[in-house]
Amino acid sequence: MATPETYTHETAPTQYVDVNGVPFAYRTFGKADGLPLIFLQHFTGTMDNWDPLVTNGLAQNHRVVLFDQAGVGNSGGQTPTTVAQMTRDAYDFIRALGFEKVDLLGFSLGNFIAQQLVLDHPGLARRLVLAGGAPAGQGAEEFKYVTSNLGGKSPKDILLYLFFADTASSQQQGEAFVQRLQRRTTDRDTPSTPQVFQAQYQAIVNWCTTPEPSLDRLAEIKQPALVVQGNNDTMFPTRQSVLLFEKLPNAQLSLYPDSSHGSLFQHARLFVEQVSYFLQAED
Amino acid sequence: MATPETYTHETAPTQYVDVNGVPFAYRTFGKADGLPLIFLQHFTGTMDNWDPLVTNGLAQNHRVVLFDQAGVGNSGGQTPTTVAQMTRDAYDFIRALGFEKVDLLGFSLGNFIAQQLVLDHPGLARRLVLAGGAPAGQGAEEFKYVTSNLGGKSPKDILLYLFFADTASSQQQGEAFVQRLQRRTTDRDTPSTPQVFQAQYQAIVNWCTTPEPSLDRLAEIKQPALVVQGNNDTMFPTRQSVLLFEKLPNAQLSLYPDSSHGSLFQHARLFVEQVSYFLQAED
Repeated sequence: MATPETYTHETAPTQYVDVNGVPFAYRTFGKADGLPLIFLQHFTGTMDNWDPLVTNGLAQNHRVVLFDQAGVGNSGGQTPTTVAQMTRDAYDFIRALGFEKVDLLGFSLGNFIAQQLVLDHPGLARRLVLAGGAPAGQGAEEFKYVTSNLGGKSPKDILLYLFFADTASSQQQGEAFVQRLQRRTTDRDTPSTPQVFQAQYQAIVNWCTTPEPSLDRLAEIKQPALVVQGNNDTMFPTRQSVLLFEKLPNAQLSLYPDSSHGSLFQHARLFVEQVSYFLQAED
Repeated sequence: MATPETYTHETAPTQYVDVNGVPFAYRTFGKADGLPLIFLQHFTGTMDNWDPLVTNGLAQNHRVVLFDQAGVGNSGGQTPTTVAQMTRDAYDFIRALGFEKVDLLGFSLGNFIAQQLVLDHPGLARRLVLAGGAPAGQGAEEFKYVTSNLGGKSPKDILLYLFFADTASSQQQGEAFVQRLQRRTTDRDTPSTPQVFQAQYQAIVNWCTTPEPSLDRLAEIKQPALVVQGNNDTMFPTRQSVLLFEKLPNAQLSLYPDSSHGSLFQHARLFVEQVSYFLQAED
């Protein structure tokens, strides 16, 4: 049987694992030994929405695991409407693959799930990469506002609008990112349906309006965490990552220039470099 | 004649260059080609106060230049009482060595001088590393407070108090830092005199109380800048580095965990890694 080293973002076959009776689609590639690095995806994203520069870059030193949540892409089932349920599913998926300890990389909605995973299962994760997110209970206004402006936009224009800053340089980087998403040409995911949009929308708004003392619970997250965001995130404002950094007991913050929600893709090489260094640091 | 590659932090001989009639002490080591990386030192620090882990680490890919400002360490003259004059001196020192374009790494007082250097000479610097600092015009209260608590402390305890967080882990890293400062055993600098303390104190308080619109002038700094600080800087509060990051048009921010003013020394390997990557990025 082929090992993860054989594959890349472009060539890893989509596989399936049963999670409580639902087939979950996943792909894995990269270094076979060491802790797996579980990628937790953003609002409406499938495995095909990860940037190959990021996944292949991190696969140099880690076993990368991408997957679709219930109802998303090629996975079966219906998308749940709460971060809590997505977190239970993510945990069961990780355990179904036989992993007992992992590193987590969550972006946006996936960032929320990563936080909740560590709160619910303190022993599961060694280190956390928390990109483009916010602590629970922080205002949903910006998210509601930007997602109200998507009507009539093409999928490409939606990515450019939501993920990249309103500058010529950022938009140019956005065009390159969108092209990179097409590097995988076969065995691609099914695009997300309106049910995914609606259910995840509800889950995100619920997360953002969680009543206190959710913020205080961040003190329970003892793992080293690398918090990453653009300097001008229009979806989940940058100040919320500063807050996340301040409330986590062992966090490091990186804010990138000229960038919005998709700063980890716009600055993919820098992001890979920082994450690699962070994950390989001594405990 | 020996080239910079021959030397390290521990072995580079102290040399002198005439700056407007005053002998300025400096040391240089590392990679001979490429832009020199000029280190701008903190309050009362001499060349011997740079962490060898940082200087030798960056010397792998850069020509490192350390120097003492007027009146400091082995340099002649009297320490000026304004950042403006220190900036003029730093510029004349850089030009006296024949450099037309440099990278700048400023820490604390040296961070202020780096900002002022770029404002006064927009063509001098390619990239800026701004550690442990603040924009001009930001409150001097914390600086005045911590420096009022130094009486009766040994030089080592002053470093532990000012540079490291009030946690066992940070203090332990501080002990290791203090030991590293002794790795250079010969041809060391003369410790700073009370005149240095008093003049630099005045310069820092003046910087911190500069009237507006000093903050708006940061928009003039077009260079890529890497802003670095500890998550709990007790000398120049962390929020001031966030402000610096926000006001600079092309900045990246890194805040480090469990650390105070000396976060670049506490997290020396991470700092070297990030600065190396930042300085080597494409323009």
